[in-house]
Amino acid sequence: MGQHTEVESRPLYDPDLLKRLDFSESTTKFEPLISASQPGDGLLVRPLCSSDYDKGFIQLLGQLTKVGEVTQEQFFKRFEAMKTCPNTYYVTVIEDTQKSKIIGAATLVVEQKFIHDCAVRGRLEDVVVSDEYRGKQLGKLIITTIMLLAKYLNCYKITLDCNDKMIPFYSTLGYKLEPGNSNYMQIRFEKTCHL
Amino acid sequence: MGQHTEVESRPLYDPDLLKRLDFSESTTKFEPLISASQPGDGLLVRPLCSSDYDKGFIQLLGQLTKVGEVTQEQFFKRFEAMKTCPNTYYVTVIEDTQKSKIIGAATLVVEQKFIHDCAVRGRLEDVVVSDEYRGKQLGKLIITTIMLLAKYLNCYKITLDCNDKMIPFYSTLGYKLEPGNSNYMQIRFEKTCHL
Repeated sequence: MGQHTEVESRPLYDPDLLKRLDFSESTTKFEPLISASQPGDGLLVRPLCSSDYDKGFIQLLGQLTKVGEVTQEQFFKRFEAMKTCPNTYYVTVIEDTQKSKIIGAATLVVEQKFIHDCAVRGRLEDVVVSDEYRGKQLGKLIITTIMLLAKYLNCYKITLDCNDKMIPFYSTLGYKLEPGNSNYMQIRFEKTCHL
Repeated sequence: MGQHTEVESRPLYDPDLLKRLDFSESTTKFEPLISASQPGDGLLVRPLCSSDYDKGFIQLLGQLTKVGEVTQEQFFKRFEAMKTCPNTYYVTVIEDTQKSKIIGAATLVVEQKFIHDCAVRGRLEDVVVSDEYRGKQLGKLIITTIMLLAKYLNCYKITLDCNDKMIPFYSTLGYKLEPGNSNYMQIRFEKTCHL
């Protein structure tokens, strides 16, 4: 049926980074014990790959918020744009390898600073675990993975924006509201397009 | 005294972007009227440049938080690392052109997303105006500049992390606490160095 071109699947960041994470550094308790290297039978924790459009990555994000109609071309373009920024985007996924489906995801974004001796700061973004995979500690797992990754990459802190309901959950994972210094404020823009 | 090599000063981002900002789009009132193009006599709003180490940029940040001993080499390295990430770092400064001194600064960091149709989101970071230049609306000016830049670059929103004391000030500049969704949480790491 014509020529088939195998497109190589590329990871967004070096997969070896995840192997170097030491889950004993985390205060989070897993019962039974799981980690990024051993997330459970038939599961794999790894960087987002360029082939993950076909594994339902965008549909999964739809469980988190409005995603819209993202085409494969848009996905590739965004993937490449992220990859073009060195040491910045660590989109991390959990795959159900039997079904070839992405069933969990979270992002570490690393921001470079001049302050604090030209430090880097981490941000936890866009955490989601598929409804069908609840009760397997996978939320805790992916969040802890991102936290350890931020620590490994020498971030001086990691932060997240959080609604009231999620405060107790993130508190169990080590995140703190600092008294007097824990507000985030925003301006939402109408859709514009100058570019 | 030997050969003098003039090192070219490079801007972190395209200075023309600042000329395209329309201050009439902002609800912030300036009295007297100033803008990024006309910030006041002897003042210039522009991107951070590679020569700004010599104009006191790091010392200025010291008025904001702990900066540490940043050498010129470290500054250049961080500047280049930021520049290597396309469309991400918009460190913006106010220069007193008579004194060749950086007297104000703020950063827009643009984060790329897959959600919201592969949107981009802006963050306002590291806002500082020199003590000696208070009362000239320069805080308002640099914050409004960053907000308009985020809008121009098609960010769907801009956010900032904020302590309790600064809420009233940022409220006057259009930033809102969303009811039930305005917390930021953090984990601070001990100094480590795996890399």
